[in-house]
Amino acid sequence: MTEPLGIWMVGALGGVGTSMVVGARAISRGLVSDAGLVTNRPEFAALDLVPLPEIVFGGHEVRHGTFWDSAYEIYKRSASFDFEVLQELKEDLLDISEALKPGTSVNAGEAIEDIVENPMARLDDGLRSIVQRIQSDIRSFRARESVEDVVVVNLASTEPPIPEGPAIGSPEELERLLDEGDTSRIRPSMLYSYAAFLEGCGYINFTPSESALCPVMQEIGTAQSMPFMGNDGKTGETLVKAALAPMFKHRNLRVLSWQGYNMLGDRDGQILSNPENLRSKVDSKDSVLQEILGYPLHTKVGIDFVESLDDCKTAWDFIHFQGFLDRKMSMQFTWQGVDSILAAPLVLDMARLTHLAMRRGESGPMRQLGAFFKSPLDCDDHDLHRQYDALLKYYGGLEAGDASEG
Amino acid sequence: MTEPLGIWMVGALGGVGTSMVVGARAISRGLVSDAGLVTNRPEFAALDLVPLPEIVFGGHEVRHGTFWDSAYEIYKRSASFDFEVLQELKEDLLDISEALKPGTSVNAGEAIEDIVENPMARLDDGLRSIVQRIQSDIRSFRARESVEDVVVVNLASTEPPIPEGPAIGSPEELERLLDEGDTSRIRPSMLYSYAAFLEGCGYINFTPSESALCPVMQEIGTAQSMPFMGNDGKTGETLVKAALAPMFKHRNLRVLSWQGYNMLGDRDGQILSNPENLRSKVDSKDSVLQEILGYPLHTKVGIDFVESLDDCKTAWDFIHFQGFLDRKMSMQFTWQGVDSILAAPLVLDMARLTHLAMRRGESGPMRQLGAFFKSPLDCDDHDLHRQYDALLKYYGGLEAGDASEG
Amino acid sequence: MTEPLGIWMVGALGGVGTSMVVGARAISRGLVSDAGLVTNRPEFAALDLVPLPEIVFGGHEVRHGTFWDSAYEIYKRSASFDFEVLQELKEDLLDISEALKPGTSVNAGEAIEDIVENPMARLDDGLRSIVQRIQSDIRSFRARESVEDVVVVNLASTEPPIPEGPAIGSPEELERLLDEGDTSRIRPSMLYSYAAFLEGCGYINFTPSESALCPVMQEIGTAQSMPFMGNDGKTGETLVKAALAPMFKHRNLRVLSWQGYNMLGDRDGQILSNPENLRSKVDSKDSVLQEILGYPLHTKVGIDFVESLDDCKTAWDFIHFQGFLDRKMSMQFTWQGVDSILAAPLVLDMARLTHLAMRRGESGPMRQLGAFFKSPLDCDDHDLHRQYDALLKYYGGLEAGDASEG
Amino acid sequence: MTEPLGIWMVGALGGVGTSMVVGARAISRGLVSDAGLVTNRPEFAALDLVPLPEIVFGGHEVRHGTFWDSAYEIYKRSASFDFEVLQELKEDLLDISEALKPGTSVNAGEAIEDIVENPMARLDDGLRSIVQRIQSDIRSFRARESVEDVVVVNLASTEPPIPEGPAIGSPEELERLLDEGDTSRIRPSMLYSYAAFLEGCGYINFTPSESALCPVMQEIGTAQSMPFMGNDGKTGETLVKAALAPMFKHRNLRVLSWQGYNMLGDRDGQILSNPENLRSKVDSKDSVLQEILGYPLHTKVGIDFVESLDDCKTAWDFIHFQGFLDRKMSMQFTWQGVDSILAAPLVLDMARLTHLAMRRGESGPMRQLGAFFKSPLDCDDHDLHRQYDALLKYYGGLEAGDASEG
Repeated sequence: MTEPLGIWMVGALGGVGTSMVVGARAISRGLVSDAGLVTNRPEFAALDLVPLPEIVFGGHEVRHGTFWDSAYEIYKRSASFDFEVLQELKEDLLDISEALKPGTSVNAGEAIEDIVENPMARLDDGLRSIVQRIQSDIRSFRARESVEDVVVVNLASTEPPIPEGPAIGSPEELERLLDEGDTSRIRPSMLYSYAAFLEGCGYINFTPSESALCPVMQEIGTAQSMPFMGNDGKTGETLVKAALAPMFKHRNLRVLSWQGYNMLGDRDGQILSNPENLRSKVDSKDSVLQEILGYPLHTKVGIDFVESLDDCKTAWDFIHFQGFLDRKMSMQFTWQGVDSILAAPLVLDMARLTHLAMRRGESGPMRQLGAFFKSPLDCDDHDLHRQYDALLKYYGGLEAGDASEG
Repeated sequence: MTEPLGIWMVGALGGVGTSMVVGARAISRGLVSDAGLVTNRPEFAALDLVPLPEIVFGGHEVRHGTFWDSAYEIYKRSASFDFEVLQELKEDLLDISEALKPGTSVNAGEAIEDIVENPMARLDDGLRSIVQRIQSDIRSFRARESVEDVVVVNLASTEPPIPEGPAIGSPEELERLLDEGDTSRIRPSMLYSYAAFLEGCGYINFTPSESALCPVMQEIGTAQSMPFMGNDGKTGETLVKAALAPMFKHRNLRVLSWQGYNMLGDRDGQILSNPENLRSKVDSKDSVLQEILGYPLHTKVGIDFVESLDDCKTAWDFIHFQGFLDRKMSMQFTWQGVDSILAAPLVLDMARLTHLAMRRGESGPMRQLGAFFKSPLDCDDHDLHRQYDALLKYYGGLEAGDASEG
Repeated sequence: MTEPLGIWMVGALGGVGTSMVVGARAISRGLVSDAGLVTNRPEFAALDLVPLPEIVFGGHEVRHGTFWDSAYEIYKRSASFDFEVLQELKEDLLDISEALKPGTSVNAGEAIEDIVENPMARLDDGLRSIVQRIQSDIRSFRARESVEDVVVVNLASTEPPIPEGPAIGSPEELERLLDEGDTSRIRPSMLYSYAAFLEGCGYINFTPSESALCPVMQEIGTAQSMPFMGNDGKTGETLVKAALAPMFKHRNLRVLSWQGYNMLGDRDGQILSNPENLRSKVDSKDSVLQEILGYPLHTKVGIDFVESLDDCKTAWDFIHFQGFLDRKMSMQFTWQGVDSILAAPLVLDMARLTHLAMRRGESGPMRQLGAFFKSPLDCDDHDLHRQYDALLKYYGGLEAGDASEG
Repeated sequence: MTEPLGIWMVGALGGVGTSMVVGARAISRGLVSDAGLVTNRPEFAALDLVPLPEIVFGGHEVRHGTFWDSAYEIYKRSASFDFEVLQELKEDLLDISEALKPGTSVNAGEAIEDIVENPMARLDDGLRSIVQRIQSDIRSFRARESVEDVVVVNLASTEPPIPEGPAIGSPEELERLLDEGDTSRIRPSMLYSYAAFLEGCGYINFTPSESALCPVMQEIGTAQSMPFMGNDGKTGETLVKAALAPMFKHRNLRVLSWQGYNMLGDRDGQILSNPENLRSKVDSKDSVLQEILGYPLHTKVGIDFVESLDDCKTAWDFIHFQGFLDRKMSMQFTWQGVDSILAAPLVLDMARLTHLAMRRGESGPMRQLGAFFKSPLDCDDHDLHRQYDALLKYYGGLEAGDASEG
């Protein structure tokens, strides 16, 4: 019998967190199908993953409000949910919201500062104290929900890169910086992942914020025997890129240029309209093509804030390539996905698989989850299909898949 | 030291045949790159395939003209080639054209009848005589070019399906029909493949014409110890489908509808504007999705003749899918490829690999080539990436590929 | 002071009728903006058109249900409305539904027969009786709503064309056919328009059903001193065509091919998946281009039923054209509109302007409304911009427009 | 009998100039159709414009080479021309090239400096001397070609905007700056237009370079009784915008966002990849929408240099709009045009019409040509269709057009 699981979200009331909670509950009650949830596919059936109704939720948030509020706002802006489904979940959502705690925005950069509503998030009583408060919040969650196993997932807005300078070299150096309260190389995402590891929680960095799982933090996670993975969930345009680029490679069609233009209008897009936050994102998206194709090529990844789109991300990619007799040809695609809707089930998937790793006593980076990330830790292979093969092979599903198709 | 290879084309002066000859010669002379040629990728380097300059060409054709004429016409209509490259190859193209022989259009259906120019193609002196003439043409080619190994490739226009009725049940029955001159169940493509096998030639059916490699013909090919493969080269929209559909499957995104609209304006398109010929094609294209996704879905494959496009095939696909919380989303792509330019190198690739099979003494359907076909013989797996894995694994290139990415 | 207006809908519970009623009420209550409503633009401000709150609704319908039911269904399928807006209008919608009467499906063709739910719609007690029942329904509506001026709008599913044969030559012949109950040349839309004219109602044929305003019916409408207009509201892809084609003409860019592919999944689409009903529609859409450009060209208008799209019409057009030095170039567009949402305000617009014509004593075809129709009566000009100029000039708005831009 | 016309190009060997010369000659010889040439439409037939064979060409250029060289390069990169057509014109092109003179790049900015090949272009012997040299070059052209009427057209690369500071206030101030050799507010385009007016030439500024027809230069042109017009030829994406935006306005559909992404790879694109040159361009493109729609909206005009595309400009626009009941919908289009091919005939058109103005004794800005420009002088109306109405009305063609459609 599987233990229940607690998912603790950093940035809980954002689109992804809200959609995850709404979706988990709606599926549990049979109000919607389980589309989008990878771990519900037959290939994962034998793993005895925690059932959705056994998952409880809580998290940190720098803004005010409840899951009902944020779900209602999303409904109004993007029609991502059916209103009647929401209404059925209202009490549930309000109840889960009781488990929210104020997050921290100390040294998160200007763009994130701008969206802080809860003054507690700005309380800067020393980095050590902040870490301890995070730890204490996780412990309260465990008690409140009577749940032992907790996975922390980072869903907060993209932080700016850490300012130039030497990386933090060792756990000891990190300890010293925390005690000294030196914020010059410390972003909030480090405090969260650090606290998570100290509390014995698995950890998923769904954002491109590089601080969360910087080398020293990976070292700490591994030392604490915790499984973790990142960075930056692969949900839309990059997913398509990773699926299509191998086709050009295998056909020996030379890609001359691959231009990608993304437009989105939600809070995430607003944060990314700040150039320093955008840099973290574009770096993460842009490396995929060259690594799959094996040669340098002209690429562009544009991200524009288009408020009217809200969460309905729209991306257009243009691929210019050369074939036999050097003839130039082209392909273009438009992707119209809802970012939170695409991301939310993947967070559930990874939390379930991290939970499994904890139960199995596995620790360190979960390389098998490369298919879910734009910049997967310790994975050089960006070919989506190889990544899926690796995923299925790891969990024993590849043979099953093969068999069913033989 | 590799033996030279003769490629004998059925439908030699069409876009694919012409582009193949022009491209092979242009690459051999260093006038263009080898883009599009899969077997020139490093994964195949160890196979000692026949070098391009060692390949000679000949073929059957129901129309008049030379490779220079058809190349010139293609240049004028689609600008697929650089004119100066063509000019450099003019003598070569005229010389290769000497190896052309009149094909047969007996019982090819009305649409193909309409494009016949050479009255010899209509000569109906009994099916047995036609087969013997084809065999004799191949033998003359061998002599003329002093080449032993010959692969026959079917590049002719799509035939209508064989009229309803029992399939030809055995080689003996086929023999009898040939002797009786009963054309009711015999299309020209059967005569060509039969002659090819009798002459000890490997055989590739690049078209959707099902007669070429119908069960009895596969039985004969295998009995003659010949390698063969088909049907219907996968060059454009279907290629993209086969690359993209697995992405939806792996993400558990439910595809609701996948509409595909193809437009093309060359001779191939003109033949396909005849409904009975079109049926062979659409059947071949449409099965891919359901087999990859594993469930029935609403699909459409439209093919329209748009003369002004000539060979510049343009296809638009719209994919409607459902994700988490049953939210509907969509993706669309436009493919603008030049059909002959995409197809020609694949024919070279497969001729080289068939040649290898002949040298290795392998016979029967070359299942490892599934990635190159819309309706691969004896292959249920339409996932492009699994097909490539199978291809590389067969030729020993997968480990190399893996290693380079580890 | 403007008189109130009654709008009597044929096919009231369809997407267009429902959206019109919901929208008129939602705007009246200030719940949404007046976007999409042309007659609310400043150019029409001086006309003293009936204000939205002064408009009452009723209509014929062959199915069961209420406006609340159909609005709820549309919300569930296409999310065209905000659910909370609907909830606020619920009582109103139920009340308006009281004014619904059973329509007639006699001789409407098989596809329409299939959607009939109300057995009264199949009651065939003679054509004359049916006409009288329609007249009586309109009179009851006038009494119930205490409204004198009524405009009848045809929003019913597209009928098949009238079977071949001589057109009805005179009002007398029509009378005779009605008395004899000869349905061979009479579709329901004729009965409705005839009854409308007899009752002194203006009439708008928003559908491509040609019977509604066939020559003899125009003669009758004019004889009754009634204003009327049709056919087939121009809401989506054809609208874009009519806006874009003049650009190619003015630049002397020769359009070689213009391919249009439409997909839709609502009841309208279902009816159109019946080939004989589709014919009425395609004829209406396809004439626009040649008439604007002034020369014959390769065109295609495809309409496919894609159920998952519901009312979210998606159309892709590909335009292949030739410019200087005969260079071929292309343009493509994807239109993603919601048919009912685009159509509904136009029906309101035209009802208001028909009302104005009635007040002004104008009768016969309202040629000035050509911009709103795919096949406008008595208008050869399909250039959208000339059509708008004509519209504005007629209503005195062009000078205002000109002045503001001088 | 019409006088012959000399067209003197600034930036003669660029794509537009080369395509114009090739096209004018190819049409004159009957090698290609006159597609793309607006003034060959029937509406202009009565104007007695100069026939194409009566037009002679010359111009300034900062690079080396001949029209044959540049045409050959364009053929190789973009296949804009048929090679055999080029071959037939070779002698002609070499002969016209004799009329080329070195241009000036003094104070043209860094990006343009980078493409200068002819050292004469850098000769800075005082602004007055440069102007006199330009005048003398035009006079030699007149003598060489025995042509009196000359129109100067600016086809040179986009200059950066003039640095901040007070505009040149009067012809006298300009004279003083020329004598003093003060280049701080003088770009080369001013020197060319000034020389053109002094020499009695009409002038067309086909580029966004604002100096060419700055207020003081317009004053001078008018004082010299010369006709002129600018700025920035409207050839591609902006043309489509100007054709489509009125549709949204007339339907009262509220445009929320209009994002436009342009990609091009020719020399023009290379210059525009320099941010200061780009600014001139984007300002010119971006004002169109707000002026047509009449309200502020979210817009973006991106221009990216994608070298592999060469002159095959590809633009994608996404239009997000709101209709009835505030429902959001969208439209997107991809424009795949060849910039030079679209621009070249318009330059011919405008040179012919400027020639007509000179013969008629008209001077000052030719407002009637607004349809041809992104930022037309003295025209506030960006609605393409109104602009065409104005054009046709001016030249007496509107009545003809109306009549044919009445």
